[in-house]
Amino acid sequence: MIHDRHLFGPGPTNPYPEATLALGAPILGHLDPAFLELMDDTCAMLRQVWGTSNARTLPISATGSAGMEAAFVNTVHPGDVVVVAVNGLFGQRMCDVAARCGAEVVPVEHDWGQPVDVERVLAAHPAPAIIAAVHAETSTGVRSDIAALGAGKGDALLLVDAVTSIGGIELRADDWGVDVGYAGTQKCLGVAPGLAPFTINDRAFARRVERPQSWYLDLGLLGGYVGEASGSGGRTYHHTAPVAMVASLHAGLTRILDEGLEAVWARHEAAGRQLQDGLEEMGLELFAAEGHRLPELTTVKVPEGVDSAAVRRYLLTNHDLEIGAGAGSFAASVWRIGLMGPNARPDRVLLVLAALRDALGRV
Amino acid sequence: MIHDRHLFGPGPTNPYPEATLALGAPILGHLDPAFLELMDDTCAMLRQVWGTSNARTLPISATGSAGMEAAFVNTVHPGDVVVVAVNGLFGQRMCDVAARCGAEVVPVEHDWGQPVDVERVLAAHPAPAIIAAVHAETSTGVRSDIAALGAGKGDALLLVDAVTSIGGIELRADDWGVDVGYAGTQKCLGVAPGLAPFTINDRAFARRVERPQSWYLDLGLLGGYVGEASGSGGRTYHHTAPVAMVASLHAGLTRILDEGLEAVWARHEAAGRQLQDGLEEMGLELFAAEGHRLPELTTVKVPEGVDSAAVRRYLLTNHDLEIGAGAGSFAASVWRIGLMGPNARPDRVLLVLAALRDALGRV
Repeated sequence: MIHDRHLFGPGPTNPYPEATLALGAPILGHLDPAFLELMDDTCAMLRQVWGTSNARTLPISATGSAGMEAAFVNTVHPGDVVVVAVNGLFGQRMCDVAARCGAEVVPVEHDWGQPVDVERVLAAHPAPAIIAAVHAETSTGVRSDIAALGAGKGDALLLVDAVTSIGGIELRADDWGVDVGYAGTQKCLGVAPGLAPFTINDRAFARRVERPQSWYLDLGLLGGYVGEASGSGGRTYHHTAPVAMVASLHAGLTRILDEGLEAVWARHEAAGRQLQDGLEEMGLELFAAEGHRLPELTTVKVPEGVDSAAVRRYLLTNHDLEIGAGAGSFAASVWRIGLMGPNARPDRVLLVLAALRDALGRV
Repeated sequence: MIHDRHLFGPGPTNPYPEATLALGAPILGHLDPAFLELMDDTCAMLRQVWGTSNARTLPISATGSAGMEAAFVNTVHPGDVVVVAVNGLFGQRMCDVAARCGAEVVPVEHDWGQPVDVERVLAAHPAPAIIAAVHAETSTGVRSDIAALGAGKGDALLLVDAVTSIGGIELRADDWGVDVGYAGTQKCLGVAPGLAPFTINDRAFARRVERPQSWYLDLGLLGGYVGEASGSGGRTYHHTAPVAMVASLHAGLTRILDEGLEAVWARHEAAGRQLQDGLEEMGLELFAAEGHRLPELTTVKVPEGVDSAAVRRYLLTNHDLEIGAGAGSFAASVWRIGLMGPNARPDRVLLVLAALRDALGRV
């Protein structure tokens, strides 16, 4: 039985139709000249959505979480001080991953729902090797100011999680001073989960770990796999590329760039505003700090006395509609509603508001 | 432009049609009860193709090479002696990956094209922590005797690469004493590349590294992600499962088990024999040692004076047909011809033989 769900949780979202069609198309061999061209095009389009000219921009062959691991495993030398801005689950995870790479982690804790306090993060250590932060916290629906971190980073590398921001809100890796970034395909890029769009600049690459503890995520080896930059010549076999997923990402990116990246951002902005206004009109209270709310992922407090899980179950059972529970200690007290990629549209907003109103009247 | 290729290289192969259709179907959220059930079913079917009852059998969310990394990163403690049977490229890679995990690697070198010399491997060290070998060497087309390694392993863990054997030839992990195994989806399982079917038994799990250097591949965390064994209760969020790829693997496995695993092995055996007989009738010489040839992946020597790459280019351009170059130092002197999954059929054998005959007459 095939379920036809509305995926309004924190990800995965429903893919763009072009991305779905590409997934079901005949596949190519991973060394086929036609595939190498498709990979080059994909990397070129990824540069556009990252806002970077980094030659080393590629889709890593695993999900976004492996992108996080690739970022740390290639840049953390044993004993390096890594300052991590922790304002949600993914900041916490960064601390775990960095520590496994031998970092001396300096976490800077924030209340969940708040953006990163840039001054406090920059003052946390006099000379960190790396400063790491999450641009759009999937656990709380909060946007942080990456440009301000970049402006104040000094000699440190700035390492940024853009999993929930890429393809949804403004992201300008080069202008903002991002040295290393990773993302996922299953949020605003509107592609199924399975790849981690990744970028690293020359400055960070020059400081990289020569032989990282991960062979699979070793950027020194992966450079040859994607031909480093388009047109730079020979490929070396590293691993078998997940060709169907890459073709699907290519189709999703083509769709986004055809529409225009700034138009896509505006569409997410409008949908998020419409949803957040609608929720407040229903008397619900938003969770994320005002002025720092993500349009693509809205967090809303579960009203007193309402069974959070029962509402989600009702929506799934009666309307084939998924919204997310809260993360961590907010599992039962917050809902997360995503409007990502093809779901950032006014009709989808009407639907989710109507369905939630229905559920609250019945559960 | 969509290319419609015959994928007769060393992998990926053309997927089973059921696997392709599942890739293009609507996706589910990774915590949707319907997806968790699909994941449980997938793990149960993976146990069948592995020939294991291991509770910890799951599709790792990356390609087969990440399966190799997961195997070593979870089992190698710093300074552990790891004996690696090296009879091709993937044995070499095991040495690199194990060394990055802190192993004292004892490689046992073989001529390429030869199977693993079990006695030499077992005698290489008096008390290794791990003995590692490749069941079906993708670089040479050779099958090795895993059961004999298992019978003689003593207290060591036996770690096996089954990337090119699973779903194509006899594989009985439990009967053969395999403690840790990893595979890929894009060979005889007939699914696009992107997942690494993985299995580990209780004995190996009890000796595992408590906090491996990889967070993404940490089996202690991944246990909760797949619910450890069907019906064991609660899931913990680890990473977003590549839901489309898992659905496709589910469809491929269903197809294989509907046909019957032994019937599928027999189909691969017959196709390989037909191909190898046909190549010899054409006057070509096979590369892999007689008596140890894989049916699903045939290696054949490029005739003297023939431009190996020109033949492959001709086949791709004129017949949309891919065969593989040789690996390593045999790149120009050997071809690799795969008949995997849906391509293990007599009509496909006729086609590849006819196309190769055509190419040899023209290039």
